[in-house]
Amino acid sequence: MPMPHESLDASSIALHEQAHGKIGTSLKVPLEDMHDLALAYTPGVAAVSKLLAAHPERARDVSIKRSTVAIVTDGSAVLGLGNIGPMGALPVMEGKAALFKRFADIDAFPICLDTQDTEEIVRTVKLIAPAFGGINLEDIAAPRCFEIEARLCAELAIPVMHDDQHGTAVVVLAALINALSLRGMTAGEVRVVINGAGAAGIAITDLLLAHGVTDLVLCDSKGIVSAARTDLAGEKARLAAKTNPRTLVGTLADAMRGADIFIGVSKGGLVSEDMVRSMRAQPVIFAMANPEPEIMPERAKEAGAFIVATGRSDFPNQVNNVLVFPGVFRGALDAGVRDITEPMLLAAAANLSAMVTAPAPEKILPGPFEEGVAEAVAAAIRESAAA
Amino acid sequence: MPMPHESLDASSIALHEQAHGKIGTSLKVPLEDMHDLALAYTPGVAAVSKLLAAHPERARDVSIKRSTVAIVTDGSAVLGLGNIGPMGALPVMEGKAALFKRFADIDAFPICLDTQDTEEIVRTVKLIAPAFGGINLEDIAAPRCFEIEARLCAELAIPVMHDDQHGTAVVVLAALINALSLRGMTAGEVRVVINGAGAAGIAITDLLLAHGVTDLVLCDSKGIVSAARTDLAGEKARLAAKTNPRTLVGTLADAMRGADIFIGVSKGGLVSEDMVRSMRAQPVIFAMANPEPEIMPERAKEAGAFIVATGRSDFPNQVNNVLVFPGVFRGALDAGVRDITEPMLLAAAANLSAMVTAPAPEKILPGPFEEGVAEAVAAAIRESAAA
Repeated sequence: MPMPHESLDASSIALHEQAHGKIGTSLKVPLEDMHDLALAYTPGVAAVSKLLAAHPERARDVSIKRSTVAIVTDGSAVLGLGNIGPMGALPVMEGKAALFKRFADIDAFPICLDTQDTEEIVRTVKLIAPAFGGINLEDIAAPRCFEIEARLCAELAIPVMHDDQHGTAVVVLAALINALSLRGMTAGEVRVVINGAGAAGIAITDLLLAHGVTDLVLCDSKGIVSAARTDLAGEKARLAAKTNPRTLVGTLADAMRGADIFIGVSKGGLVSEDMVRSMRAQPVIFAMANPEPEIMPERAKEAGAFIVATGRSDFPNQVNNVLVFPGVFRGALDAGVRDITEPMLLAAAANLSAMVTAPAPEKILPGPFEEGVAEAVAAAIRESAAA
Repeated sequence: MPMPHESLDASSIALHEQAHGKIGTSLKVPLEDMHDLALAYTPGVAAVSKLLAAHPERARDVSIKRSTVAIVTDGSAVLGLGNIGPMGALPVMEGKAALFKRFADIDAFPICLDTQDTEEIVRTVKLIAPAFGGINLEDIAAPRCFEIEARLCAELAIPVMHDDQHGTAVVVLAALINALSLRGMTAGEVRVVINGAGAAGIAITDLLLAHGVTDLVLCDSKGIVSAARTDLAGEKARLAAKTNPRTLVGTLADAMRGADIFIGVSKGGLVSEDMVRSMRAQPVIFAMANPEPEIMPERAKEAGAFIVATGRSDFPNQVNNVLVFPGVFRGALDAGVRDITEPMLLAAAANLSAMVTAPAPEKILPGPFEEGVAEAVAAAIRESAAA
């Protein structure tokens, strides 16, 4: 039984009050006597400083840079709460840092930026980068998240990933792989509708296309993203040219008619039972809006859905980024890669889907606490990097 | 016996290679099942985020901001190594973060900036401030350290301290208090010479003046800082008007003639035995240049020095900032103060000096591992804040 919301809220606030935040620092070396101090700090540390000043590439051997990730947000798109600013975002970033530690032994630290200006965000992240082995961009609103990520990937020599985009895309693809297997269909023959053309929707579209999905229709709040529309720019204009091969026009309802798979990263309640009924046989519904899904699982099932996934932990098939980001950064840090590439993300999704040994309609993804999830994802990144 | 330098260097590098850096993160809340996840992360965390978005002042109750300190450097004045840049500085900042944790349970994280531009440093620190409860500026060269600290103190609502200035000043004053007690002199009658008018020398001068020292002569590489000089600007010009009451002119040797206390924050070997002999009876020598003191303790003693202190751990009376910065920030974070004020620093020095219950010429400061040092300093800050 899920906890009633008021009770969960109160319990969560009580936990945070009691612990005064969710992460701290810890020592990795002894500091118990003057000899320890001489080795870890002055005068011994001068030798390590000289080494790194001359050979900065040795940082991954002798410094924290081997396992540090900055979790960078501007607080502009936090959970379902929207633009609540950097202080409101802090508890989420702390939680993310805790998950990095718990699942992949990564030392992540929240960097909550007191600006929402693209240039300032890019510049600030570049300036603080030396102590970090990777940058996890988080809860930054579209469309500025696209430019920020692209610029940082180009300008920094450490891996940068906007988790709301690519973490989400990987877990959705992993779920899709198992759903297709249950449906006995291939990526090339399935009809997919994605509703929501923000950070997650754009990245899911790109990754599904890269995986081999060809009949994919993307919708935004105005309906089907198509070459016929004159109001599109940026990422949506780019994808209008790469998706919608049957050149549909119209609403989300029009897009869903005859589709096999619905992927919602939009708003609660947008999908009706009739829309599910209008899909082809054995429809697959990923209704990931939080906290209220695009359609509640029981209603989707009543309308004939074969598989339902949501973003929530109190229903089966939770589509949860925590299955992805710890392992992706662990693999990237281990391999010392400069970039997290699309082939790496495809490999991560494949390994993640394979963690479910016997897929079933109620079990297309592993749970966060199943053993080996982060390691399977990390292995995919390392192997793809070595290939 | 101190370790030979090559051996210490090799041991320190080996330690850093083995541990891959000196600090990591750790969990302050359980994360073992879905219920833990729901409280620490989604969906429960949304309640905490909403709380902080509406009431940011609650951050010290429910977030890491209660105990986080950013250790910010631009790598321009690292130890005795000089301008070795942010990557070379990282091992020192990690060491400092480890000391913060070990001595005051503070969660400090290195922020090594890839810029040495004053405006960029100020702007960057302001932008990353939301997740931090305090800012420790470190190893930033004079004179830009003065402007950076002053601007950040004025513009941020959390305490900011440049440790090379004020941490050093507090431990020097604590040592001075015990040295004066052993000499049976008061602050008002002692003659003090400070050699080195960089970050540390300027701050020591100010704090000693605030403590009641009146006959204080500051020297830089060109000799006595006096109102007669036409080459002075900034902090030196300010202090030329507040020091040197006997209007001396000349060299360091001229300043030391007839002085009681020499405080060196300059370069190795600048003080000769004759210069020590030219001081008044029972001279006190704080030769804190690293790694080579202004005069080696045995030579100072041969020339008649009554008390000798250095910056080194292999001689008695190590003047070490680690006695100060953990407690100062612990007290400031506990009290929730906006600024670390001069009265707080004076109180911290008094409490630190009192940690030595029976001062002796070889024992004017506590050792870093003596129980209660950080707590005594923290208590001074808290009590001064409450006064």
